Amino acid sequence: MKYVSYQVNGEESYGVRVGKGIADLKSKYGETYPTLKDFLSSKEFSEGNQHENESVTYSEEEVQFLPVITNPDKIFCIGINYETHRIETNREKAGYPVVFHRFAESQVGHNEPILLPEESDRLDFEGELAVVIGKPGRRISKEDAYEHIAGYACYNDGSIRDWQHHTHQWGPGKNFDATGGFGPDLVTRDEIGDGESLRLQTRLNGEVMQDTTTDLMIFSIPELIEYVSSYTTLQTGDVIVSGTPGGVGAKRNPPIFMQEGDVVEIEIEKVGVLRNPIAAEAKQKQQAKTAAQSV
Amino acid sequence: MKYVSYQVNGEESYGVRVGKGIADLKSKYGETYPTLKDFLSSKEFSEGNQHENESVTYSEEEVQFLPVITNPDKIFCIGINYETHRIETNREKAGYPVVFHRFAESQVGHNEPILLPEESDRLDFEGELAVVIGKPGRRISKEDAYEHIAGYACYNDGSIRDWQHHTHQWGPGKNFDATGGFGPDLVTRDEIGDGESLRLQTRLNGEVMQDTTTDLMIFSIPELIEYVSSYTTLQTGDVIVSGTPGGVGAKRNPPIFMQEGDVVEIEIEKVGVLRNPIAAEAKQKQQAKTAAQSV
Repeated sequence: MKYVSYQVNGEESYGVRVGKGIADLKSKYGETYPTLKDFLSSKEFSEGNQHENESVTYSEEEVQFLPVITNPDKIFCIGINYETHRIETNREKAGYPVVFHRFAESQVGHNEPILLPEESDRLDFEGELAVVIGKPGRRISKEDAYEHIAGYACYNDGSIRDWQHHTHQWGPGKNFDATGGFGPDLVTRDEIGDGESLRLQTRLNGEVMQDTTTDLMIFSIPELIEYVSSYTTLQTGDVIVSGTPGGVGAKRNPPIFMQEGDVVEIEIEKVGVLRNPIAAEAKQKQQAKTAAQSV
Repeated sequence: MKYVSYQVNGEESYGVRVGKGIADLKSKYGETYPTLKDFLSSKEFSEGNQHENESVTYSEEEVQFLPVITNPDKIFCIGINYETHRIETNREKAGYPVVFHRFAESQVGHNEPILLPEESDRLDFEGELAVVIGKPGRRISKEDAYEHIAGYACYNDGSIRDWQHHTHQWGPGKNFDATGGFGPDLVTRDEIGDGESLRLQTRLNGEVMQDTTTDLMIFSIPELIEYVSSYTTLQTGDVIVSGTPGGVGAKRNPPIFMQEGDVVEIEIEKVGVLRNPIAAEAKQKQQAKTAAQSV
């Protein structure tokens, strides 16, 4: 199944893809499970395909997508997890996964603008496969890891490169508001073979910037789950963003940074296409001001 | 005023210190403000001293303290923010604050054990002043920063040193479950002059390990608020943990790491004393197992 989070008329909701549309599930389960994250704990989610007979509530055009998990407690981003990216960033081989943390508030949904903040002109893309945790656990062995996965989604770990490198700790450049694209769909684990290699592409205005298969990760998804759950208890809805391959804009010659009006897409085989236009925040604010003055 | 979060008979609550005890506030305001974080947005919080006539509900001995903000959306930890600590860690002077992120789930309350995990024997203390945000905001100037502060608390940014240095990103060593002491009290801003220098001490089994005054921060509290709010919107209940002075265990000769049975205290002038015993997690689990078997 493919689950989505969205809003309609300003109301947050979630649902499941059926036929050519979306069947709203919040209207049915929302009292007990107010968000998709909560719904991941339900019997209805774990039992899978029973939504196939739901009827379409909305067409895709009627909804405004939200980050597919709007409110994860924890988002773990993995750095330097493809050899092509390790080489372009001149990093030594590491014995452990590189982990930094994102806050939920930095995320945006499919089709929503990723914002170029007024503080920088170095907004870069990072196409990645996101793993969403279903079953909670601490000290999960890599052998048991797949059992803890609810599903997968596309992620764009949008990065403000100058702020990322203000110091040796990357958090500030990885947490600007509205820089982390996530979605549109959560594709459940049963739709993809455990450990199956998936092709991942990042395109900027249609031009391929990153192109890999997910079997080329340095630390595999089970190894990432084992490592992260060694230090913290994974909860339902937590997200592990599994790293980006070579080809990021900052390491190109000449470098490429995203500009207002660009469109960035992350496509992952069987998972979907995440598309975000780029908007300049300063200009957005100016337009809002002008609109307010003209009233 | 001094606010606290705690549980009694397994029920989470919050209250305010009055006389020699605690007046429970959740019983009065909990429907609208279920946690202290929520209560920080209330008129009753912002108007201050009206709780002085509340009567005592519990003595301090009757409650089990929780992290004073149990559920912050974001915890920003500042690294290398005192010259004494910069020198002992051989770090270069930085033009920007070093920021890494902690998850709420890694916190423990006053008197609760900080856990030495089975993965390591390098559990270290870091005494710090925590700043709790009251009024939300983005791009807060340092001139306006104090207006956004709800209050202050003691913090022990407990660190698993080997995991902190697995790679160049510190997150894993800073997020082990039950390593971040926070509390006992949130001391409201009106009780401390803006920018007032406070003495901060860390004691291990009564011996002074760290001793500084908070005017020695490299980046001041208003500068930290300005920097962090440049990249993310600060929300009510967000926490900025402002950095630790020299004297950490790992940089002593010989190094000192905390062991089961130790007691660590962070004392900050006007803010209070945060005390935590150290427990070994492996042993705790073994005891639970033995207890279960003997039933």
